[in-house]
Amino acid sequence: MRRVFEPPSPRRRAREFGLEFGPHPVGRHNAITDVPGVRVGQVTIWRDPGRGDHGVGRTGVTAIVPDGIGDLFHRPMAAGVAVLNGAGELTGSIEIREWGILETPVVLVSTNNVGRAADALVDAALAAGVGEVVLPVVGECDDSWLDDITRRWVATDDVRTALDSAVGGPVDEGVVGAGTGMVTMGHKSGIGTSSRVIEGVGTVGVLVLCNFGGAEQLRIQGRLVGPRLAAGLDTTPTLDRGGSCLGLVMTDIPLDARQCERLARRVGLGLARVGSVAHHGSGDIFLAVSTTNRIEREALGLVDVTVLADRSLGSVFEAVVDAAEEAVTNALFVADTVVGVDGHSAPGLDVDAVLDLIG
Amino acid sequence: MRRVFEPPSPRRRAREFGLEFGPHPVGRHNAITDVPGVRVGQVTIWRDPGRGDHGVGRTGVTAIVPDGIGDLFHRPMAAGVAVLNGAGELTGSIEIREWGILETPVVLVSTNNVGRAADALVDAALAAGVGEVVLPVVGECDDSWLDDITRRWVATDDVRTALDSAVGGPVDEGVVGAGTGMVTMGHKSGIGTSSRVIEGVGTVGVLVLCNFGGAEQLRIQGRLVGPRLAAGLDTTPTLDRGGSCLGLVMTDIPLDARQCERLARRVGLGLARVGSVAHHGSGDIFLAVSTTNRIEREALGLVDVTVLADRSLGSVFEAVVDAAEEAVTNALFVADTVVGVDGHSAPGLDVDAVLDLIG
Amino acid sequence: MRRVFEPPSPRRRAREFGLEFGPHPVGRHNAITDVPGVRVGQVTIWRDPGRGDHGVGRTGVTAIVPDGIGDLFHRPMAAGVAVLNGAGELTGSIEIREWGILETPVVLVSTNNVGRAADALVDAALAAGVGEVVLPVVGECDDSWLDDITRRWVATDDVRTALDSAVGGPVDEGVVGAGTGMVTMGHKSGIGTSSRVIEGVGTVGVLVLCNFGGAEQLRIQGRLVGPRLAAGLDTTPTLDRGGSCLGLVMTDIPLDARQCERLARRVGLGLARVGSVAHHGSGDIFLAVSTTNRIEREALGLVDVTVLADRSLGSVFEAVVDAAEEAVTNALFVADTVVGVDGHSAPGLDVDAVLDLIG
Amino acid sequence: MRRVFEPPSPRRRAREFGLEFGPHPVGRHNAITDVPGVRVGQVTIWRDPGRGDHGVGRTGVTAIVPDGIGDLFHRPMAAGVAVLNGAGELTGSIEIREWGILETPVVLVSTNNVGRAADALVDAALAAGVGEVVLPVVGECDDSWLDDITRRWVATDDVRTALDSAVGGPVDEGVVGAGTGMVTMGHKSGIGTSSRVIEGVGTVGVLVLCNFGGAEQLRIQGRLVGPRLAAGLDTTPTLDRGGSCLGLVMTDIPLDARQCERLARRVGLGLARVGSVAHHGSGDIFLAVSTTNRIEREALGLVDVTVLADRSLGSVFEAVVDAAEEAVTNALFVADTVVGVDGHSAPGLDVDAVLDLIG
Repeated sequence: MRRVFEPPSPRRRAREFGLEFGPHPVGRHNAITDVPGVRVGQVTIWRDPGRGDHGVGRTGVTAIVPDGIGDLFHRPMAAGVAVLNGAGELTGSIEIREWGILETPVVLVSTNNVGRAADALVDAALAAGVGEVVLPVVGECDDSWLDDITRRWVATDDVRTALDSAVGGPVDEGVVGAGTGMVTMGHKSGIGTSSRVIEGVGTVGVLVLCNFGGAEQLRIQGRLVGPRLAAGLDTTPTLDRGGSCLGLVMTDIPLDARQCERLARRVGLGLARVGSVAHHGSGDIFLAVSTTNRIEREALGLVDVTVLADRSLGSVFEAVVDAAEEAVTNALFVADTVVGVDGHSAPGLDVDAVLDLIG
Repeated sequence: MRRVFEPPSPRRRAREFGLEFGPHPVGRHNAITDVPGVRVGQVTIWRDPGRGDHGVGRTGVTAIVPDGIGDLFHRPMAAGVAVLNGAGELTGSIEIREWGILETPVVLVSTNNVGRAADALVDAALAAGVGEVVLPVVGECDDSWLDDITRRWVATDDVRTALDSAVGGPVDEGVVGAGTGMVTMGHKSGIGTSSRVIEGVGTVGVLVLCNFGGAEQLRIQGRLVGPRLAAGLDTTPTLDRGGSCLGLVMTDIPLDARQCERLARRVGLGLARVGSVAHHGSGDIFLAVSTTNRIEREALGLVDVTVLADRSLGSVFEAVVDAAEEAVTNALFVADTVVGVDGHSAPGLDVDAVLDLIG
Repeated sequence: MRRVFEPPSPRRRAREFGLEFGPHPVGRHNAITDVPGVRVGQVTIWRDPGRGDHGVGRTGVTAIVPDGIGDLFHRPMAAGVAVLNGAGELTGSIEIREWGILETPVVLVSTNNVGRAADALVDAALAAGVGEVVLPVVGECDDSWLDDITRRWVATDDVRTALDSAVGGPVDEGVVGAGTGMVTMGHKSGIGTSSRVIEGVGTVGVLVLCNFGGAEQLRIQGRLVGPRLAAGLDTTPTLDRGGSCLGLVMTDIPLDARQCERLARRVGLGLARVGSVAHHGSGDIFLAVSTTNRIEREALGLVDVTVLADRSLGSVFEAVVDAAEEAVTNALFVADTVVGVDGHSAPGLDVDAVLDLIG
Repeated sequence: MRRVFEPPSPRRRAREFGLEFGPHPVGRHNAITDVPGVRVGQVTIWRDPGRGDHGVGRTGVTAIVPDGIGDLFHRPMAAGVAVLNGAGELTGSIEIREWGILETPVVLVSTNNVGRAADALVDAALAAGVGEVVLPVVGECDDSWLDDITRRWVATDDVRTALDSAVGGPVDEGVVGAGTGMVTMGHKSGIGTSSRVIEGVGTVGVLVLCNFGGAEQLRIQGRLVGPRLAAGLDTTPTLDRGGSCLGLVMTDIPLDARQCERLARRVGLGLARVGSVAHHGSGDIFLAVSTTNRIEREALGLVDVTVLADRSLGSVFEAVVDAAEEAVTNALFVADTVVGVDGHSAPGLDVDAVLDLIG
């Protein structure tokens, strides 16, 4: 069974409980899609033996599409990458560093599916007439605690569906898309998102695929709640199994590649607030994209560019850190308990207990 | 007037109020000097016009000396550098990255004094018989809110005194040495330190020269206390004036250069817990050194090295983040109010108010 | 038609004409396989419409296998990456930088086939029992001047065949494997290899997939021969079409990751001798691996490592540069003219003319 | 004795012998000063015991000044740094990487004098009213083969003189300024410069302080002449003593920081043509600056920038490599034999013999 869309969990996002994360207001949907033109498409893959499958699937695909595939290739966006801990993958990152651009949508999957997702993204790009060669951008986390990752459930069609179904507006969080099998700080998590509007400057959106940290390390709003919640939890999943956090920043603020890289570097500070120490096996890899700073691929000679002066980046940095913290918190708040392969379980966060603890 | 030693402030360190920072026990002095062989020397420079000077000096020198200058040069220690935000300086960092070693003590001063501190360190190294050429390691923060930095009070002798007076044992924190004029999150700070003992593995020590962030951003134990404390504070100092945080990690755990660099990268996560978003003007530069992984400078042919396996780094990473957070918190807890140039003031943290807020 | 092996071209390697490249002797086969344990497998894909295909294929797969897939994963080798110009891809590079290891064989293909090659490498690794997740290492160049790259001829089976057929001994060069459709400096090139033996130290092997530069830039033995040879050549292919040079260094000299990275950085200097200026569209990406510096994947606690002292690296650096230069020269000397898609042609180097010019 | 200006050596530059380096024409002076606004000032320090000194001085200062100190600080230029081998120093490089700008002139000295040169540059900057803090940019090579480097002859005044005397027009090369005591490939070298004019695009200037490589490695116009010239040479100097090559690129082509970094990376390819393998002890550090891409230091909000499209960088890259090769060759052609400390000698290149060899 593949679910393109599921009714949202009755669980609620962090902000709905009155939690606040920094001084800047959120956008309309408090999501990466608040950045004009940015769309998200997700395919959730959920398989159980009883349903005719011979394995357990808890995985999926999340695609972040800031413009049509062809348009993006021919008029790429300024982009930068930062790596906090590099035990992971973001294909295309070498080119992003060199040319300072994003030329394809970003697809997130589980680790062993990176190759086929990249392959599917090439297909999609060629179909969209991008020319002859393309270097796709695919990120990953390792969902093997819940998913039979060796079965590699993601098919080319799933990637295409995620790309084709990408829409603006509210974004499903938690147990959805690439986040279906992810675990953070001993609890079920997955996809999380948040945004900030900086008056007179622009909008910053963050989306995370989160799958990192140990149960004892969890902090909500900076408060160390992990040890109290960890009693009775199976704390083996993430720390011994890789983990990772893929973080995307999109913004309509005009920035060049160097500045985007500066934004990307701040995502890790948001993770730190939730307790991350960037553990050894974690692929904490971040990509920031400026949707309004675009140069024609075939441009020659002099081109005019507008950018925000570096001295005005202060509030933008703050927005990235705050939104990253909130996005991770959302992923934890929204995700329900999932039981997966070998009977492994990742419990949904006991939000009531958390609220009690942080009072 | 130059003070090599001042009676410690009646203020107390964070842990003395019962605050805790992570699961690992601290070393004997909860200081970078808990790492065997590591010594710290500080010279505080405090000048006022009334005493015959024609300017206001609130600055100094802090030297971290992990071994005798000659011994260190001839048998350098494995080392790695990480930059969270590079609006600052750490001389020698290019060589540290290439050769993976620390070959001189580390001297911290205010920005405009980096050159002369480097010069003095070369003098000291030549006097110690290091051979013919040396690339000194000097870090800085900008103390111009309180110090008449254009006067450049630090003299060669001050650097030599700091180096020569370096001792083990307790380390003065707050308004001392290079920290004399530093401000963090709108409050007086300066030097801070902390350590962790990882059972059966070794000791990790962190020392920070801290001078970063805006008053509204301050977090103590992860709790956002800045906005409540900021009422009435002059919030202009740091954000508009550069700021920075130079962080040093020393450990007797045997690590190679790549691993040291991984440790250095974690210091920023500790800063994030105190509220840092690594603002535009901040030189957030971190150096980690393994005091027990040393190779003879003149070694040729095959050499044997012992290192901790990467998969055992988890608790070490945690120790670095926790100790970095505690070191910054100590710098804030211990530092008294200082009034400096142009009547600028940096108030000591109202610890009682903080304790009330974080309850 | 897919060729696992073709009779070698009657063309000869550079050294057979008396050309020399530096002071160090070459290994038995003057190939990357002179490094003990290193094997190479290649699959050449050659398709023409007349043979039942509906497109023109001039592409293939080259696999460099330094140990059995399972053994390599469980006991990875120290490795480092360097990027001279990053308009290309080497998957796995983020992890190589973080952990300092190579954990899979290296597969080279044309650009659009990276995803499926990575996918096939994951299959092979899982089949070899590597555990649950793996980050494969795949590099590429763009062969679209001769190959209908949009057809993406490489299949999973081709990658498996290349891996499974990898052998030691002589290595086919020129129009073979991933090099089948590659063009360098206006001439047909492809795969090239060379090795050096450093007395008492060990062996250095280099293999390049070369596809870079403009016809006017070609230098043989440092002599600028391009302009004289270029008369009549179609000079459009590489410069306007991406190009790239993927370079691999393998050595049995015990080196750590930092040192491997230093070796990798030298490959570009060998390319410079052949005239490369690392043009805008080139993915000049280099990987160096020490086959004898291995740490058990599951190792915990202290481990002992032997490395060559940095001060002894001088001749190793020289060996890398010399072997890289010779490998590229071999690729050019050995490759015959190929006519490909849309009637595009890449002429084999006129070796007699070159020898005349460099006298 | 300090010489601000010496009559040029009767030796001649490479191009005067008919040597050519690439397709692009040179500027009026074939010097970095061909880039509008760029000035160079040099102070040569030459001391011998017989003249009242108690040591041997063969050192100096070279300052590259692309605009008035105050103007440069308040309206910094886009800049990027690249490190080929990092056994050296370029102060300010961390900030250049972060902010992407050059904010002070560049001063070159011998290794042990970096601190005091930085100190002098701070003095000069404060005197020019740059505000309160400044991070000076100082590069170095190790001239200890000829110079009694432990005497540290460079004084603050020398740096000021170099800065104040900077002029456009022809640039002295060889045994002058910071190049006075430098040795390359077993021969005396020092300062070298060259430029290229790219029709309709702009001018590229390169200046090198060169002090690298072993006598056996020397290549002129790509031809390996070292072994033939090395007979009878004392080949110990450079390889065992550090060496280095500091390379500066200035251009009036509008480029951003990322693009400048791409230019800086190409300098090493020019060195490779002269035989460099970037030996272990070499500080091969390169800085590229776009004199026309400037943003007001205090700028806030949106700013408009013009840059050359990346796809037009091809000829610029070529110009950098060609000019770097020619600059090094000039340094070797122009430098006369120098006898220095402990009777060490560095012979001027036997240009006639070279011309014979490269026929």
